[in-house]
Amino acid sequence: MSLTSATPRDAAAAAKSASHFLATLPVSARNDALTSIHASLSDSRDAILAANARDMDAARRAAADGHLSSSLVSRLDLAKPGKWDDMLKGVLDVRTLDDPLNVVTLRTRLDDDLVLERLTCPIGVLLIIFEARPEVIANIAALAIKSGNAAILKGGKESTESFVAISEAISRGLDACSVPNGAVQLVTTRDVIPQLLALDAFIDLVIPRGGNELVRYVKQNTKIPVLGHADGLCSAYLEASADPTMAANVLVDSKTSYPAACNSLETLLVQESALETVFPAAAEALLAKGVELRCDARSKAAILAKLSSSADKIQDAQDIDYDTEHLALVLAVKSVRNLDEAIAHINTHGSHHTDVILTADSENAERFMAAIDSAGVYWNASSRMADGMRYGFGTEVGISTNKIHARGPVGLEGLTIYKYKVRGKGHVSAVYGEGEGKKRFLHEKMDL
Amino acid sequence: MSLTSATPRDAAAAAKSASHFLATLPVSARNDALTSIHASLSDSRDAILAANARDMDAARRAAADGHLSSSLVSRLDLAKPGKWDDMLKGVLDVRTLDDPLNVVTLRTRLDDDLVLERLTCPIGVLLIIFEARPEVIANIAALAIKSGNAAILKGGKESTESFVAISEAISRGLDACSVPNGAVQLVTTRDVIPQLLALDAFIDLVIPRGGNELVRYVKQNTKIPVLGHADGLCSAYLEASADPTMAANVLVDSKTSYPAACNSLETLLVQESALETVFPAAAEALLAKGVELRCDARSKAAILAKLSSSADKIQDAQDIDYDTEHLALVLAVKSVRNLDEAIAHINTHGSHHTDVILTADSENAERFMAAIDSAGVYWNASSRMADGMRYGFGTEVGISTNKIHARGPVGLEGLTIYKYKVRGKGHVSAVYGEGEGKKRFLHEKMDL
Repeated sequence: MSLTSATPRDAAAAAKSASHFLATLPVSARNDALTSIHASLSDSRDAILAANARDMDAARRAAADGHLSSSLVSRLDLAKPGKWDDMLKGVLDVRTLDDPLNVVTLRTRLDDDLVLERLTCPIGVLLIIFEARPEVIANIAALAIKSGNAAILKGGKESTESFVAISEAISRGLDACSVPNGAVQLVTTRDVIPQLLALDAFIDLVIPRGGNELVRYVKQNTKIPVLGHADGLCSAYLEASADPTMAANVLVDSKTSYPAACNSLETLLVQESALETVFPAAAEALLAKGVELRCDARSKAAILAKLSSSADKIQDAQDIDYDTEHLALVLAVKSVRNLDEAIAHINTHGSHHTDVILTADSENAERFMAAIDSAGVYWNASSRMADGMRYGFGTEVGISTNKIHARGPVGLEGLTIYKYKVRGKGHVSAVYGEGEGKKRFLHEKMDL
Repeated sequence: MSLTSATPRDAAAAAKSASHFLATLPVSARNDALTSIHASLSDSRDAILAANARDMDAARRAAADGHLSSSLVSRLDLAKPGKWDDMLKGVLDVRTLDDPLNVVTLRTRLDDDLVLERLTCPIGVLLIIFEARPEVIANIAALAIKSGNAAILKGGKESTESFVAISEAISRGLDACSVPNGAVQLVTTRDVIPQLLALDAFIDLVIPRGGNELVRYVKQNTKIPVLGHADGLCSAYLEASADPTMAANVLVDSKTSYPAACNSLETLLVQESALETVFPAAAEALLAKGVELRCDARSKAAILAKLSSSADKIQDAQDIDYDTEHLALVLAVKSVRNLDEAIAHINTHGSHHTDVILTADSENAERFMAAIDSAGVYWNASSRMADGMRYGFGTEVGISTNKIHARGPVGLEGLTIYKYKVRGKGHVSAVYGEGEGKKRFLHEKMDL
């Protein structure tokens, strides 16, 4: 591992070269590297927290001057209760996960002594761009090594000191391992992101970890595939048949348990026939939690008719509200005639992240889950369940709204691809075919 | 299906909308559509072959004027023996393949009455750009429908008449089916490729079917993921331990059985210790088949020392020869010290398509197959085996050298992604966690 002052191109070329060796290491060697990183981070606790305190001082000054949001300052803080221990535990958690490599997913006897195998292998070189949250570096470095990928890490300027300190600790940890030196490249020089994004000859996948502006910038400025999501515009469709208490609970959890998360609810669609039955109680529950409702005329009238509390958190929705990820205690509300209208709205205005139907009708629920074009489609459960830990993946590199490769919470599996191995005894293609005297392939499925 | 004179944007928006319905159709409905397309193509045989004859006339004139290669003219010809029947059989072959959709690949009990499922689903909207080979249209339309994807088909100008005739037949075939009207969009207007490539809001995957100039153009001009390969620069590494007859047979098949194919051999690396043992006989066998060898000094000397025939097909290699997909009876030859040098050369100069080791040493073979970063890695078998039919996939949409999503010959599976379904009874996230009074997730693996 190198804390590089080399050019981005040299760093990427070195990572590519290292990736070819890393791909051949057994899982024991990759796990040993994680053990070593864990020990090194543990030994460097004081230095890392001191570096983080310097980042925090600078960030607090910037926030006081209005140059930085206070939520970003909060995300920077490694001294928050539990955060340090979680970071270290995260590295060991990755170590305990099953090896994602060399999993045989297809085995076919093409002919006598000619066997085709498809097995998982690393993607190659990952470029990971961080904004705040310096603890993510350790987690992602662990995931990259475990999955046999080389990684180029580029930190954000607000967390530079923390990033360098954590990186140096990881670097020392790796020095004693068989993971090759170039497999993790740390780029600390500024303004190199455009250069890195142009290195599609060396970099196979970009994972931006930050706000949607960063993700959108990355997607618009590279030919390298990008894994992640710019927006998390999650919707719920409430049917008249839904149990009122269940619906209110799920909506309150989806909207209020962490409003800044990508899996939080942003739009509520209400079946017309539910407007005067299930909906008012759900709206009251949301209002009681401080949620501002931006309603179309029909849904607004329905609440106002039944409202027992004050009406100042009920506003008229503008069109833009149905296309906005509010990331705050604001919910766009719209009445729709039926399931088809709800599906059409979500597929058009949503971000293909996670969408929910609240209903007692299993047929409608199944139709919703089949027709909604999103990574997660839920029946009577909170959109906040969309998370690698909650799904049981151990950890995640992020949540993807891509339509290819990996979708939803992405764990180690999403950092792998496959290759086909063929073992023969000198088999040639020209002897096979349909004509007379030609051999036929056996195409016998074999045990995995 | 519509033979559209609409704008590319309208066609893409219509395809997107249709894709949401198509995704919900059962396999029986998708198979019925293929039956219907097959019948319609069969009924339209005369009209399609007449249209193809008009394309052929124009192409022959263009070839006579030097504006078109004769190999392209040959690829246009639907009247070649077997081609028409193969096209029709291809549609029925796709019908018999297993349904790639709704395959459950993960099922986890998150908690009582809270189950997570991952299951395969269509990608959405495919844009398929063809050059010549009009018969591919029917094949790809069949694959798209079977996998539940909407498709936008854009033909090349040389095959316009054939394309329109086949498309009209497919269109009539679909009229009687439950596959929605907009699910296959045919764009016949000229010069719309740049506009189509900009429609990343509607199109989820581009599949260019044509020469490497087309593929490279597409890759460089879109943010939409592209499935395919620009180059097929396949290499073989010959070790001294290889059986001489086996090696010569595999090399001859890899190089000469179809030199214009992407899975043909372009570079031969020879272990130094093999130069005077196994290599000369292999070289003679290649020369006897009319292959021109472009050699480095050592390999050239080794052949000339043992050559029994004339030397005019033995040339000095230029550096560029090791980075060139010759697609002709030309083979670049280079001596390398050992396996590591061979691996480094192939990973640097190859195109990550299919690479071969010829050896009797199983340890070296396994190391080669682990370290070479290619879709196909073969031990003692011809590179020409890299093909969806030969792999037993029934058919293929193409061969991918991508590092994510799908690699190697891509069949129906490569046209799918997955979604996560969660079925609950009102489960919310806030009750789960590590603290006191919090619930734990069960994360019980369930049967698939």
